[in-house]
Amino acid sequence: MSFSRVAIVGLGLLGGSTGLAVREMLPGMATSGWDADPATRQRAAERGLVERVCETAAEAVEGADLVILCVPVGAMGEAARAILPGLAEGVTVSDVGSSKQTVARVLAEALPGIAVIPAHPVAGTERSGPDAGFASLFRNRWCIVTPPADADPVRVAALCAFWEGLGAKVETMDAAHHDLVLAVTSHLPHLIAYTIVGTADDLEGVTQSEVIKYSAGGFRDFTRIAASDPTMWRDVFLSNKDAVLEMLQRFSEDLTALQRAIRVGDGQALFEQFTRTRDIRRSIIEEGQDDARPDFGRSDHGGSA
Amino acid sequence: MSFSRVAIVGLGLLGGSTGLAVREMLPGMATSGWDADPATRQRAAERGLVERVCETAAEAVEGADLVILCVPVGAMGEAARAILPGLAEGVTVSDVGSSKQTVARVLAEALPGIAVIPAHPVAGTERSGPDAGFASLFRNRWCIVTPPADADPVRVAALCAFWEGLGAKVETMDAAHHDLVLAVTSHLPHLIAYTIVGTADDLEGVTQSEVIKYSAGGFRDFTRIAASDPTMWRDVFLSNKDAVLEMLQRFSEDLTALQRAIRVGDGQALFEQFTRTRDIRRSIIEEGQDDARPDFGRSDHGGSA
Repeated sequence: MSFSRVAIVGLGLLGGSTGLAVREMLPGMATSGWDADPATRQRAAERGLVERVCETAAEAVEGADLVILCVPVGAMGEAARAILPGLAEGVTVSDVGSSKQTVARVLAEALPGIAVIPAHPVAGTERSGPDAGFASLFRNRWCIVTPPADADPVRVAALCAFWEGLGAKVETMDAAHHDLVLAVTSHLPHLIAYTIVGTADDLEGVTQSEVIKYSAGGFRDFTRIAASDPTMWRDVFLSNKDAVLEMLQRFSEDLTALQRAIRVGDGQALFEQFTRTRDIRRSIIEEGQDDARPDFGRSDHGGSA
Repeated sequence: MSFSRVAIVGLGLLGGSTGLAVREMLPGMATSGWDADPATRQRAAERGLVERVCETAAEAVEGADLVILCVPVGAMGEAARAILPGLAEGVTVSDVGSSKQTVARVLAEALPGIAVIPAHPVAGTERSGPDAGFASLFRNRWCIVTPPADADPVRVAALCAFWEGLGAKVETMDAAHHDLVLAVTSHLPHLIAYTIVGTADDLEGVTQSEVIKYSAGGFRDFTRIAASDPTMWRDVFLSNKDAVLEMLQRFSEDLTALQRAIRVGDGQALFEQFTRTRDIRRSIIEEGQDDARPDFGRSDHGGSA
């Protein structure tokens, strides 16, 4: 079994990239799509994110054997209800949401009797909207598929093959474990970045102009992910509350320990913590999950040797 | 007044970059240097970080009219005592340390009667050592000069001109204000990055392999600055304790507020916070302080359009 017609619902960064990637890497596959925003639909048609941009969700999914919901996690239920009248017999419905337990429950409720296999390609940039997508977004990135216990293994294998066809590496896992892993590798980092950028914005003794001018000292790194789509991230935190709060608690404890080390002048504790964190970066680069060049290969100071 | 012979003490990322930048951009200026580590001295000579690598600090500074200390903040006193016997009459001593009040006090004590004008080029990468430096590191970056109240304005102007000659933009300010500004734009971001990378490393329910594989969800951004030099950063936190603790307190309060919003499901509060943080990123890019391309222009997934 392999899919021959994919419908993409939601044509922002993830949906648009999926469409472009299919058109480039799986050219035999038919693509259609829809977005709730008319301006996004128009732009999607202009960029050719999918072959056929439709006026309704139900029309977009007609005849598709794979439907991928690429909307914020909080909009999944609504999107599922919108596609239901158009779904073909035997269709497989999936998604790209960043939390998986909530999405699995919402989609199962909204699509009774339909084969739902949630998934999450761990890829993105800080951009959003129909102009943000690009075909190589998933290349060498991991896509996590979280099949329900009663999922058809043949469909699961077909969905995995679909993502591999777009250049991704695929792992399957339990939705609860996904939510715990992503809480630390994605959700907590975003929450912390949003927080510190807000903290810097609120200071009375330091001007915003100073924060901007001297941001190359480290702060600017955080502003990238803090520029991510607010709706998407609001929904992530509301839908993965328990795992995020658990990770946040652990982070706060660790931060308190370093705070204490600074207060009492425990240089040895600081040095030990700062030494062991180097190894993780090395491993991430060795695994091909980040740019090996210094400073991410940023070009703004004229390149780094 | 302008300087004609610069001695660089400490030949790691900052010292090496300063030497290379002078050789490329101020070719009329003589360069000499020293490092406490013999292996670093040898490598510095091989790379030509300065024209003349000396065997002692005192020898390196002989005849220099500008000496720049490029050692960790905690090693400034020792470096100052090492150069004292070799200092020429009329010399100006400066540094590149990331905290300025402590450094100003330590250098004033160790170098009685010598003109000391501390400075801090806000530039760097996560690399360290004699192979990390490159000539364009300071291009389009800010260098903050923090002259003591009794500093000779002619020397201050000459030091500012020196950094401008290396491509930097220069601002002068009070050392105490510098330490507050950098606590938020550099020191707090590093502390948070070191913390979260440590938190992720300690989890029992998520393996290190999983953290690495799915780091593209945001976590990998933090690992870059958490790979910075441990000695340098230990010294920064110990020497700028009060400002760092103040910023940390504000950050913790803001994090607690977002934590509460997640716990009670206050989507509106989350959305508002996540919206306002976008503007700062836009300003940083407009001011030329970060790469405008998505994802810092990272190339690991084959480039982003």
